[in-house]
Amino acid sequence: MAPSPDSPSAPSLGIWFIGARGSLATTATIGLAALAARLTDETGCVTAHQEMDGRGLAAWTDIVVGGHDVGTTSLAKQAERLVAGGVVPGVLVQQVAADLDAVEQRLRPGVRAGESPDQRADVERLAADIRELASGVDRVVVVDVSSTEPPHDAGDDAASWAALQAAWDAGRAPLSPSSTYACAALLADASYVAFTPSPGIDVPALRELAEERGLPYAGSDGKTGETLVKSALAPMFATRALAVRSWTSINLLGGGDGSTLSDPAARSSKTGTKRSGLESMLGHPVPGPMHIDYVEDLGDWKTAWDHVRFDGFLGTRMTMQFTWEGCDSALAAPLVLDLARLTGRAVEAGKTGPLGALGFFFKAPIGSQEHRLATQWEELLAWSHDCAERVSERTSEQVSP
Amino acid sequence: MAPSPDSPSAPSLGIWFIGARGSLATTATIGLAALAARLTDETGCVTAHQEMDGRGLAAWTDIVVGGHDVGTTSLAKQAERLVAGGVVPGVLVQQVAADLDAVEQRLRPGVRAGESPDQRADVERLAADIRELASGVDRVVVVDVSSTEPPHDAGDDAASWAALQAAWDAGRAPLSPSSTYACAALLADASYVAFTPSPGIDVPALRELAEERGLPYAGSDGKTGETLVKSALAPMFATRALAVRSWTSINLLGGGDGSTLSDPAARSSKTGTKRSGLESMLGHPVPGPMHIDYVEDLGDWKTAWDHVRFDGFLGTRMTMQFTWEGCDSALAAPLVLDLARLTGRAVEAGKTGPLGALGFFFKAPIGSQEHRLATQWEELLAWSHDCAERVSERTSEQVSP
Amino acid sequence: MAPSPDSPSAPSLGIWFIGARGSLATTATIGLAALAARLTDETGCVTAHQEMDGRGLAAWTDIVVGGHDVGTTSLAKQAERLVAGGVVPGVLVQQVAADLDAVEQRLRPGVRAGESPDQRADVERLAADIRELASGVDRVVVVDVSSTEPPHDAGDDAASWAALQAAWDAGRAPLSPSSTYACAALLADASYVAFTPSPGIDVPALRELAEERGLPYAGSDGKTGETLVKSALAPMFATRALAVRSWTSINLLGGGDGSTLSDPAARSSKTGTKRSGLESMLGHPVPGPMHIDYVEDLGDWKTAWDHVRFDGFLGTRMTMQFTWEGCDSALAAPLVLDLARLTGRAVEAGKTGPLGALGFFFKAPIGSQEHRLATQWEELLAWSHDCAERVSERTSEQVSP
Amino acid sequence: MAPSPDSPSAPSLGIWFIGARGSLATTATIGLAALAARLTDETGCVTAHQEMDGRGLAAWTDIVVGGHDVGTTSLAKQAERLVAGGVVPGVLVQQVAADLDAVEQRLRPGVRAGESPDQRADVERLAADIRELASGVDRVVVVDVSSTEPPHDAGDDAASWAALQAAWDAGRAPLSPSSTYACAALLADASYVAFTPSPGIDVPALRELAEERGLPYAGSDGKTGETLVKSALAPMFATRALAVRSWTSINLLGGGDGSTLSDPAARSSKTGTKRSGLESMLGHPVPGPMHIDYVEDLGDWKTAWDHVRFDGFLGTRMTMQFTWEGCDSALAAPLVLDLARLTGRAVEAGKTGPLGALGFFFKAPIGSQEHRLATQWEELLAWSHDCAERVSERTSEQVSP
Ligand SMILES: NC(=O)c1ccc[n+]([C@@H]2O[C@H](COP(=O)([O-])OP(=O)(O)OC[C@H]3O[C@@H](n4cnc5c(N)ncnc54)[C@H](O)[C@@H]3O)[C@@H](O)[C@H]2O)c1
Ligand SMILES: NC(=O)c1ccc[n+]([C@@H]2O[C@H](COP(=O)([O-])OP(=O)(O)OC[C@H]3O[C@@H](n4cnc5c(N)ncnc54)[C@H](O)[C@@H]3O)[C@@H](O)[C@H]2O)c1
Ligand SMILES: NC(=O)c1ccc[n+]([C@@H]2O[C@H](COP(=O)([O-])OP(=O)(O)OC[C@H]3O[C@@H](n4cnc5c(N)ncnc54)[C@H](O)[C@@H]3O)[C@@H](O)[C@H]2O)c1
Ligand SMILES: NC(=O)c1ccc[n+]([C@@H]2O[C@H](COP(=O)([O-])OP(=O)(O)OC[C@H]3O[C@@H](n4cnc5c(N)ncnc54)[C@H](O)[C@@H]3O)[C@@H](O)[C@H]2O)c1
Ligand code: NA
Ligand code: NA
Repeated sequence: MAPSPDSPSAPSLGIWFIGARGSLATTATIGLAALAARLTDETGCVTAHQEMDGRGLAAWTDIVVGGHDVGTTSLAKQAERLVAGGVVPGVLVQQVAADLDAVEQRLRPGVRAGESPDQRADVERLAADIRELASGVDRVVVVDVSSTEPPHDAGDDAASWAALQAAWDAGRAPLSPSSTYACAALLADASYVAFTPSPGIDVPALRELAEERGLPYAGSDGKTGETLVKSALAPMFATRALAVRSWTSINLLGGGDGSTLSDPAARSSKTGTKRSGLESMLGHPVPGPMHIDYVEDLGDWKTAWDHVRFDGFLGTRMTMQFTWEGCDSALAAPLVLDLARLTGRAVEAGKTGPLGALGFFFKAPIGSQEHRLATQWEELLAWSHDCAERVSERTSEQVSP
Repeated sequence: MAPSPDSPSAPSLGIWFIGARGSLATTATIGLAALAARLTDETGCVTAHQEMDGRGLAAWTDIVVGGHDVGTTSLAKQAERLVAGGVVPGVLVQQVAADLDAVEQRLRPGVRAGESPDQRADVERLAADIRELASGVDRVVVVDVSSTEPPHDAGDDAASWAALQAAWDAGRAPLSPSSTYACAALLADASYVAFTPSPGIDVPALRELAEERGLPYAGSDGKTGETLVKSALAPMFATRALAVRSWTSINLLGGGDGSTLSDPAARSSKTGTKRSGLESMLGHPVPGPMHIDYVEDLGDWKTAWDHVRFDGFLGTRMTMQFTWEGCDSALAAPLVLDLARLTGRAVEAGKTGPLGALGFFFKAPIGSQEHRLATQWEELLAWSHDCAERVSERTSEQVSP
Repeated sequence: MAPSPDSPSAPSLGIWFIGARGSLATTATIGLAALAARLTDETGCVTAHQEMDGRGLAAWTDIVVGGHDVGTTSLAKQAERLVAGGVVPGVLVQQVAADLDAVEQRLRPGVRAGESPDQRADVERLAADIRELASGVDRVVVVDVSSTEPPHDAGDDAASWAALQAAWDAGRAPLSPSSTYACAALLADASYVAFTPSPGIDVPALRELAEERGLPYAGSDGKTGETLVKSALAPMFATRALAVRSWTSINLLGGGDGSTLSDPAARSSKTGTKRSGLESMLGHPVPGPMHIDYVEDLGDWKTAWDHVRFDGFLGTRMTMQFTWEGCDSALAAPLVLDLARLTGRAVEAGKTGPLGALGFFFKAPIGSQEHRLATQWEELLAWSHDCAERVSERTSEQVSP
Repeated sequence: MAPSPDSPSAPSLGIWFIGARGSLATTATIGLAALAARLTDETGCVTAHQEMDGRGLAAWTDIVVGGHDVGTTSLAKQAERLVAGGVVPGVLVQQVAADLDAVEQRLRPGVRAGESPDQRADVERLAADIRELASGVDRVVVVDVSSTEPPHDAGDDAASWAALQAAWDAGRAPLSPSSTYACAALLADASYVAFTPSPGIDVPALRELAEERGLPYAGSDGKTGETLVKSALAPMFATRALAVRSWTSINLLGGGDGSTLSDPAARSSKTGTKRSGLESMLGHPVPGPMHIDYVEDLGDWKTAWDHVRFDGFLGTRMTMQFTWEGCDSALAAPLVLDLARLTGRAVEAGKTGPLGALGFFFKAPIGSQEHRLATQWEELLAWSHDCAERVSERTSEQVSP
């Protein structure tokens, strides 16, 4: 059930993007403006699915966007690039130009690894930026859609909130940028969503802080392409008792994300989250290479080829292969909006800690071991209904005299 | 949970194949002998899945096979053909040669469309054949794996059991062969499984008869290839709110089944059941050609290519395609054994009428509107557990003094 | 060698399109304007290939377009449609808008099957239209890019030029529209290129007329997609002595052409020309279905899948499959321009009758049995060089005092 | 024209395999026995192509096999493994068992890198082995089908025959094993074919020796799969003036060769030869990853996927992709026999030095820059005809009194 205008109006929502000038954030920003102005339909938006209980979700018109980025290219320029790449229609960008300009005013400079002498000061400055947006809306969800970081071990310095304070006192800077942002989010009382595989909130000190503040969080690494298909197909092999002998994947992508991932360190963060699910769904390790390659001319268009070798009854050898040709930003943008709406409502519904029921959206679900898409869907629907119930109860309590 | 040797021994089971000399039946017969002799593992057998409650299922060693066929080629000869086609290993066939000879003794001539002057007499003769097998086992399941028939309208003559009697009295023969067999099965007190899209039990007179006799039945048209993949993938597009604009399928197959389906009338039975599910899973009609082509040199190996055109957020155009290269008989044979075991136990558990919970196995589930594979799996597990519970209660009642 | 500005200027060229408002003709018209204005490069233009002897080819700036069509949608409107379909960039269409308007002025109404009472009068009117364009340029090439006609047997009435006259005298109309245009072309002293599989010039009466008038012609059915790939791949199997056992093709296309071909009669013209080559290249008939399907949402984008089953040494079974995703009009448009330039120069070089050396461009080459792409390329290069030589000799004769 | 029994009998031929116990050599040995006994047809044998002038080629019945290998598994055992892997039919192996045993008697131990203290002595011992076979036949061709070596720089020590002698005198061992074998071949007056990308004869000292002894040689790296397809397809894009923007390749293979290539050093030899051709055929560097991955369960069956992104007219973006599923040994074995027959006859025809005209068979043709398959085919046919002419002239001279 999509949110309806006549339901008691839901609280307004602020989305704070880390990586706000990237392809994904820009597409989401354009798309949100288009949805609010009814210039596009809700294709790709899971929160608009007819089986979803949408009560209490922020309306498209009640969402404002701000964010951090280390880049300085204007949103308008990025939008142009997306038009040229066939990701968004040119005419749409013209129609929402004013909205983009408004968001542009709400973007703030980010932080880079190894750049600042004082990580506590960074965190405080970032938190202040987020609070600025928060002042105008009922609640804020911070969504990390910045470039994937290489794996980073924050070590003992981040083993607890106290340890982190001590490290900062001693002038050390144990957090990677993504964790710096996650920390700022929590300090600004915002819930947090990791759409990338970067460490983010996933360090003990920050999980402790979230717990203490009663804030929910979700992640990690959006499931939008080849891994999505895997999570639909692998259960087929498993429930039919077919024996998968090898599963090979190759992902070709250009764009900013592809360029980042052409760095082997960043790529290793990604193949890690991609691999984790397959073994869990099939119940045993499955050999087979898994490549992510940067092919510049593909831009935001990702092409993935998967080859599955499996045995059937009496040892008969069979194969299945698929090719996926998707536009990454177009697939991810509505999910990022969905996640913000769902997480925002979860706060309202009193949910705290890791939101495992949002695993449907992620390659490496925090708070859940479930990777099978259909099962994740059922869990999401049930949880969403529960949130809607709680929120509507509260609302009616408030409304009644 | 697979059946264990120390559980109170389950009743013995007879499987009566219609089309007992075909590729599928022969593969199933070889495979059953191999399973009983522990010459092969249970790959492809859904009833051996670890999540399945297998209590009360007939053990592989407690199953005997008989059947009807209009052909006369010996099982040994058919087995040779399957070896040559790479469907079953030659060495296995040598090892189970004696079992094949034993089954050969239990095969009886079938009936062909338009051949016999007296359909009632046919039905009685066929029922007598089935009863012969039944006399040696606790229960019999008849499984139709014969050549797909063209669509057939049995008309008013089969609108009720009484009408059918009247038609027979008047010397008419309204039933197609597959329905003749289904009728015989019921008269012999056997439950019935339609692995083909032929009419079989799906005429009012026979459903009435099944109801009256309290017999369960299941079908129709085994889901083993491209449609199987569809039922895993289509829900992915649906739950992600992606808009599927066209879905094209082409199936290439040789073998006896391919040759039958090169007849447009028979093929139309098949494309019918294949199409029904997609629309239901996606919630709207989806254009796109659907071909089944006979390519002789492929033998039992089916190659299917599917091409899906879908739109994402902001109208972005994307595609997915897959190629499936499977051995039809190897995929279907263990399912046929599974269906016989499950249906046999269902009788014991007191189930009657259409077994919609077996929809997991079928393209056009009788007694269910559900086509999504993962949901069908959950339904199957729950139902199977229920059957196991009932059977084990009965068993313990019988066992206790 | 591409034509160079300092070579003695080649004669100017008129291209007269039959089907001038179709996707292909419109793309060619836009592209020609863009080439003349140097707004695009020569990608896809075979006459610009560095191994091609381009002396004497009309420069892009010396080519004018006119044509017939039975439709009335303006070129500007069609161009818009092509932009929406992603075939041509919107900005380019804006830049050449004036050129499109100029061509629009030179388009004349065509003729439809079975519509006119007097075929001779039709032919004369059409020829007059062509002569109008011819008056402003050195020579005209008529190129048929109209909708594919169903197979048509012109019969005895078209067995000779005399027979055709007699039939007309008797008030009969034996020619299909495509042949009516071909006849008009010849009467207007224009050479003729059949880019479609329609009968066109391929009836005895018209071949006689062409012979008599010393006019060259070429065809038929442009080779731009799956058949193109076939003509590159089939020789690989043949020269490696691999035994191709089946070759399956499926072509999905939308657009005007796809819609025409959803009519089985028109489609049969097409599958005919597509099939002819494979057998000739492999040296034996090859079974396998060949589908052309209309899938509306694909627009001008054609997706083809081919599956090749072949045997190697000691009977080993292997397969190859490919998927081709091409934009039909973008592939064909430069070839149509190439053909006009090459045929125009051929007139100048004194070539008459069927131009078998242009087989490189066609599925069913008129005047040649050669289907292998690489061999056709060698033949084209040699012939093109010969034409260039002849033309440059003539030119130097003319130039020298 | 295939060799005919009534042509004046051609000289007998010895094939000496380096790597004689490998998959490829064993398949070739089995296949040769089967051809000689007319148990199989000549599918996959290029020398049996009807356009090939086969006069003077050794008859299948006049070829004997011997070889070196460092492994000790018997040919019979290897044959069994090939049967299990579906590469050769079991029944055939039974029929040629005696022939395999005979070849087994002619296999000698090889040499390994870094193992022997005295490289000159090695070479002499290896040459003596080859001469032993040579004593029973008219001529011997040594064919390297051993495991691919890592790149190896023999350095100044192999800059000339004299330098090599000096190095040996000084107790150094500059040659890699493959070059040791090549040296032995030349010293035994045998011509040499490199079916692997290993250095082999391609070091100055050995090319000098071959020159001096007037011996022909050919190589390198057999072209049997994805690169073969590339050499058929790339010219299509080039002659149609389409702009290839990226070309991605992934090769999955198991078996002994796959296992060797899972070593990055060995793999780099391979990707080098694979890449060289594409750029030359397209006329410019083409980006795109190129993977070779070991996937154990694929055995001798190689699966390759290629993805080609190209632009057409007006910048339209298009793609082509193909999947190749071939049995490597079955593809290569007949070529190895062809190469031996052709090289043997070339000696007879007086050919010396690098045989560039054999480029048709290789990824990295020695003595030729041509990579286009169709052009290589024409060159091969012409050269083969020339050899046949020369040999038949000599024969008739010898025959005439
Ligand atoms: N389908 C999808 O698009 C998808 C799916 C899963 C995950 N992701 C992840 O989402 C992220 C964004 O993808 P994209 O395609 O927009 O990439 P992009 O390269 O276009 O954008 C990344 C943005 O992050 C900014 N950035 C980099 N470092 C930063 C920092 N330290 N602080 C703040 N901003 C920083 C960059 O300047 C850039 O604007 C990537 O990590 C990607 O792996 C995307
Ligand atoms: N994966 C699968 O194999 C699969 C999946 C779904 C459905 N099916 C269906 O299962 C059936 C069997 O497939 P197959 O590959 O074994 O085909 P097949 O052609 O090898 O065997 C069919 C057998 O039925 C027999 N037969 C024909 N008419 C008969 C009649 N009137 N009475 C009795 N026997 C008769 C034939 O003689 C033959 O032995 C087909 O209808 C097929 O469509 C198979
Ligand atoms: N790659 C390619 O595009 C390709 C390759 C081979 C052949 N062809 C052939 O080229 C032709 C054009 O393709 P398209 O995509 O432009 O199709 P289209 O449907 O867009 O255009 C066809 C045009 O022909 C016109 N027409 C129809 N009947 C006519 C008549 N009797 N007289 C004059 N005009 C008439 C139509 O009004 C239309 O404008 C088709 O026959 C197609 O099969 C195209
Ligand atoms: N289609 C093809 O099969 C194909 C194509 C191109 C190149 N090749 C090359 O042909 C070679 C053989 O392929 P294969 O599939 O038979 O591999 P394989 O691993 O089955 O056989 C290689 C053999 O070489 C032997 N060997 C290794 N080192 C040796 C040494 N120093 N001296 C003598 N023998 C030695 C091994 O013991 C083994 O028996 C590989 O180098 C492969 O790259 C094969
Ligand atoms: Na595409
Ligand atoms: Na295969």
